[in-house]
Amino acid sequence: MSTGKVWLRGLSLMILSASLNMPSRAQETQTSNLQTLMPGLNLMPVPANVQMGSGSLKINAGFNVMLTGHSDARLEGAVKRFLDRLGKQTGLLLQPFGLPISGRVTLVVRVEHESKPIQELGEDESYVLQVMPTEANITAPTDLGALHGLQTFLQLVSVSPDGFVAPEVNIKDTPRFPWRGLMIDAARHFIPLEVLRRNIDGMEAVKMNVFHWHLSENQGFRVESRKFPKLHEMGSNGLYYTQEEIRGLIAYARERGIRVVPEFDIPGHSTAWFVGHPEFASGPGPFTIERKWGIFDPAFDPTNEKVYKFLDEFIGEMGKLFPDHFFHVGGDEVNGKAWDANPKIQEFIRAHDLKGNAGLQLYFNKKLQGIVSKHGKSMVGWDEVLDPTLPKDIVIQSWRGQASLAEAAKQGYRGILSHGYYLDLGWSAARHYAVDPMGDAATGLSAEEKQRILGGESCMWSEYVNAENIDSRIWPRNGAIAERLWSLQEVRDPASMYARMHVLSAQLEWLGLTHQHNYTRMLHRITGAASTEEFNALRTLADAVEPVKDYTREQTATETPTSDMPLNRVVDAIPLESRGAREFSEMVDKYVAANCHDATLAAQLRAQLILWRDNDAKLQPLTQRSFLVKEVAATSQDLVAVASAGLAALDALEHGGNTDEAWKAQQTAVVQQAQKPKGQLLLMSAPAIQKLIDAASAGSSCAAPRQ
Amino acid sequence: MSTGKVWLRGLSLMILSASLNMPSRAQETQTSNLQTLMPGLNLMPVPANVQMGSGSLKINAGFNVMLTGHSDARLEGAVKRFLDRLGKQTGLLLQPFGLPISGRVTLVVRVEHESKPIQELGEDESYVLQVMPTEANITAPTDLGALHGLQTFLQLVSVSPDGFVAPEVNIKDTPRFPWRGLMIDAARHFIPLEVLRRNIDGMEAVKMNVFHWHLSENQGFRVESRKFPKLHEMGSNGLYYTQEEIRGLIAYARERGIRVVPEFDIPGHSTAWFVGHPEFASGPGPFTIERKWGIFDPAFDPTNEKVYKFLDEFIGEMGKLFPDHFFHVGGDEVNGKAWDANPKIQEFIRAHDLKGNAGLQLYFNKKLQGIVSKHGKSMVGWDEVLDPTLPKDIVIQSWRGQASLAEAAKQGYRGILSHGYYLDLGWSAARHYAVDPMGDAATGLSAEEKQRILGGESCMWSEYVNAENIDSRIWPRNGAIAERLWSLQEVRDPASMYARMHVLSAQLEWLGLTHQHNYTRMLHRITGAASTEEFNALRTLADAVEPVKDYTREQTATETPTSDMPLNRVVDAIPLESRGAREFSEMVDKYVAANCHDATLAAQLRAQLILWRDNDAKLQPLTQRSFLVKEVAATSQDLVAVASAGLAALDALEHGGNTDEAWKAQQTAVVQQAQKPKGQLLLMSAPAIQKLIDAASAGSSCAAPRQ
Repeated sequence: MSTGKVWLRGLSLMILSASLNMPSRAQETQTSNLQTLMPGLNLMPVPANVQMGSGSLKINAGFNVMLTGHSDARLEGAVKRFLDRLGKQTGLLLQPFGLPISGRVTLVVRVEHESKPIQELGEDESYVLQVMPTEANITAPTDLGALHGLQTFLQLVSVSPDGFVAPEVNIKDTPRFPWRGLMIDAARHFIPLEVLRRNIDGMEAVKMNVFHWHLSENQGFRVESRKFPKLHEMGSNGLYYTQEEIRGLIAYARERGIRVVPEFDIPGHSTAWFVGHPEFASGPGPFTIERKWGIFDPAFDPTNEKVYKFLDEFIGEMGKLFPDHFFHVGGDEVNGKAWDANPKIQEFIRAHDLKGNAGLQLYFNKKLQGIVSKHGKSMVGWDEVLDPTLPKDIVIQSWRGQASLAEAAKQGYRGILSHGYYLDLGWSAARHYAVDPMGDAATGLSAEEKQRILGGESCMWSEYVNAENIDSRIWPRNGAIAERLWSLQEVRDPASMYARMHVLSAQLEWLGLTHQHNYTRMLHRITGAASTEEFNALRTLADAVEPVKDYTREQTATETPTSDMPLNRVVDAIPLESRGAREFSEMVDKYVAANCHDATLAAQLRAQLILWRDNDAKLQPLTQRSFLVKEVAATSQDLVAVASAGLAALDALEHGGNTDEAWKAQQTAVVQQAQKPKGQLLLMSAPAIQKLIDAASAGSSCAAPRQ
Repeated sequence: MSTGKVWLRGLSLMILSASLNMPSRAQETQTSNLQTLMPGLNLMPVPANVQMGSGSLKINAGFNVMLTGHSDARLEGAVKRFLDRLGKQTGLLLQPFGLPISGRVTLVVRVEHESKPIQELGEDESYVLQVMPTEANITAPTDLGALHGLQTFLQLVSVSPDGFVAPEVNIKDTPRFPWRGLMIDAARHFIPLEVLRRNIDGMEAVKMNVFHWHLSENQGFRVESRKFPKLHEMGSNGLYYTQEEIRGLIAYARERGIRVVPEFDIPGHSTAWFVGHPEFASGPGPFTIERKWGIFDPAFDPTNEKVYKFLDEFIGEMGKLFPDHFFHVGGDEVNGKAWDANPKIQEFIRAHDLKGNAGLQLYFNKKLQGIVSKHGKSMVGWDEVLDPTLPKDIVIQSWRGQASLAEAAKQGYRGILSHGYYLDLGWSAARHYAVDPMGDAATGLSAEEKQRILGGESCMWSEYVNAENIDSRIWPRNGAIAERLWSLQEVRDPASMYARMHVLSAQLEWLGLTHQHNYTRMLHRITGAASTEEFNALRTLADAVEPVKDYTREQTATETPTSDMPLNRVVDAIPLESRGAREFSEMVDKYVAANCHDATLAAQLRAQLILWRDNDAKLQPLTQRSFLVKEVAATSQDLVAVASAGLAALDALEHGGNTDEAWKAQQTAVVQQAQKPKGQLLLMSAPAIQKLIDAASAGSSCAAPRQ
């Protein structure tokens, strides 16, 4: 290696000796100083190997790309999109791809051989990207790797004192897992194609390669079936995808190196099927499209042979429409009530000596697997379908815990992890990030068993999302999950992840994702005509709160939520993770760790707390004018209360005062009161303010050495 | 009238006695208290008559529309778009138009008779909109009025303590002028169709009815010609509109009640034509597409009979493509140099006894008018074409001053005003708003002459705009011009205009206009990866500045600007009018008017000044990292300097001190230095800070009565 190059220790050194496609998983090196080691690089996901140089390649209007080696329509399309994106990202007027290059070639892309016409699990996605001060090149076994390399290049481009540049760097990269997916539930709320397309663009940016399309539910059947048109005609309220649209989306995803796995969830979650076809249900009809959320009784009748004839024809039709080798049949959350209520079905269970309803579902799954297999596909199911008597080619999607993933691997089944990756639950990016498919129960698996863990999928269930706010529920947090599935297990420092995720977040807006600007727009709707000061007051409050977590939104609702309910409230507009609250909390931690003796930090904390304390007064006029602001009035007052408590604590820490047990109890009561959700919002700064109170309380290590 | 209703005095009282279509123009009533008189209504343009009630109509998910009377595809389409927009604006899940209405009808739209298949100048656009607590109705002679009524309804809808509502109101409305246009120059920079479409949506929202499409220039010929394909093939770099696309855009505009007037600018501004057809030029070829800005020499050869044969065929083709009755031929800024340089042409001038080059252009115009007229069109030209010997059916577009508009009217020509409405010059909305087609030289016209003034057009010349920033150059200021052309002359209070324009600005984002969020995105590009604090520092600076005005951008450029130049600098990203600076300036005026004795205002001014003074320190790291921020470093330091001077003045005003002539001279020098543009930016708060310094200076009325 020439001088001036620095190896990124702890990140790649130990990898370089290993072969590119087999990164060492055993290494447990700490990467908490990743950001320092990869200075100025905001790559997400972090590549397997990064070697930095000291120079940089200038990106100017003359930038061009040349393809050498194997080339195809997908690769050419990718280069066109790359140039379009680079133009947007820099504001430079670049020459379109395909014009004759006069002068120096900037980026050479060389692909060795063709990829599969129908993208397959486990195709080689590796690439090498080399940026030198004079030119750059990407080499990859197939265009899949080249696509990833182009995305990495886009993330490398940054503004510098001398214009836009890409730093001198040598990257050898390959994914840790071959199955890196995002599931979107387009059934509970219909999600328009343009929204799916921009999210697929986002997936490409973070190198995800499976779009799992959840297409049927109690609340809607979203695919045109030409063999059984009553399915979409009666089960969708007119909101479904035509077969032509589906083929278009599959082509769109393929161009981005992304497989499309359809899911038709049976035998439960199936009310919408029965609106047009009550004859396949276990109970008597008629059925109507479900409007509420939850688990519902209707289920296919596994004892009815016509059901299998129907499924054979239907899966035959859908298996042709969706070319991917994997076919998801759902299989989750069958409550069995419809089976219990049907004496004929109970009689069938007894006659066939099945083990109750679970046995009946297993019976169903076996026949279903036969049908799926007959049509040339491998069946995927949620972890409820796991049973050692099923053939080994099925794939288990683990959602109820990581144990089922390990259990499946032990039994010889391949599996993907979604437990811990449910985007709708409102977890922090750090919490998702900490979940690893090889962690938890999987740590004890043998090397062979571990190979069966294919990766994971983030899941965007759509009870509370629609076209307007779905982007902000997926992004930018999905970037952290994508990194978990692509990068080495050792890459796990949350601080580095957050720093890079926020850069990614701004970049994703160039793809047309709306997670940032729809937030602003939705707040404008909530305020109506408002002064800048009033609007900023709502923004300040909104930035400090998060929606209630996990499955508590239904529980805290004042009226039963339905699919017709408008999603126009503050709880629908705000990001699921508050960046402001997180950064405040980190500041408090730093301050307390410094034994509360850092005057600069104290001043920053004070400024934030004063802003919060004084915010409600500015918001008051809006509270009077808008029902959507009125709803958050109590939370706004809570913010005043906790900010005042925080200021009292700071005052005590900086100037002394009586902070005895009674004081502490009083302040703590204020914070505890504020931590009760109101308007389905959580005040995310409350725990950090409690830390300040604890620190200020007599006897704490902060308070003790005062004077 | 029933009780509970309040007449809006000064706005409509004097109108109601007059007939709806003939609003009194003589009335000179002050409307500075318009906002008080029209409480809670943020209508732009202000309707001719508004009568407020005290109730309101609730807008909820059951909202529906019924058409009675005459109906056609345009009206049905408008209702569909209305419901879509209302859904977006409220977040409510509304039923699509056309489903059977069960229960109460919310909005009844009744149109009396059909409108013209090809929209004509002067068609009746009036409507009556009545909102009652139980229902609303719109009645109009034709669907054009109904379209306007639907837009007014959308502007009436606001958030209230009890949900979304439209206030009880009775509106009788009709435009003041029949020609209310926006010109977009799609030739200097090509503007993609989707950008035009969203701007046409914006025009509909503010009731403009003419889209003037500037299609050819030295820098590009943007229309597919099937008769003369070399025009677009060689004159556009591949950036042109196909005839099919043009037909699509004309249909799109028509659906929104908007005529499309094409402009092919000849005999000057025509270099791009000659790339493919040098034989029509006055000088020898070959020609290349111009990349620079300014006035260039190439011009058609008026002495060449083949030119007229060509124009006859070309205008015949384009006259069919563009169905509107008016056809714009440009005619501006012919510098005559190509004619001077051609002895054959000079000989022609002498032989035909023409009055020099002007006479030659008149000769050209007369023949051109004959061709345009032969194809069934009326010719429109920029004011250079005005000559009393031309037929009276031509229309003069006045751009060099208002005098030519009045002169044209006196000579019997119809005219439209654009002088004062050039959006690219960076004027404040208030300055555009103060320009009235009936003002200036037109005040002395007779009633008959005044009838010839058809209205006006705002003009968006595109030297420094592209798809990314054009929206922010047009909006929201175009709303003020639209109001000038629709509303009564007496409606002219800038404070009311600004209040309503800012509400409009947020609403326009629902149409997909990008004037707000592309500003943020472009700043993100300029900062690259940045902390929230750093980004906010750039935002604070950017919010306080404006680009240099009028035609000074070329003069202040460090290198010759071209059409290839990226538009990615701060000067390209910021709005052309700084809301923050304007509001600061208004605050200073109020403070000084209160004899500098208002402590609340003083505190607000101080807070803003401190923010500005401390901003540069926060921006410093970015100045080091980004060349696009480095460019504004001097302006950032200027902001510190003027803010410090402002604080010194405030200190003196509040706490006393030596503010003698020397002090004043010193502070004034600081402000004057800061007022010199740097990085092509103007520090817009400087004049207001000078006012503070003047007020603080010994001897001023503020400073004098201290103690």
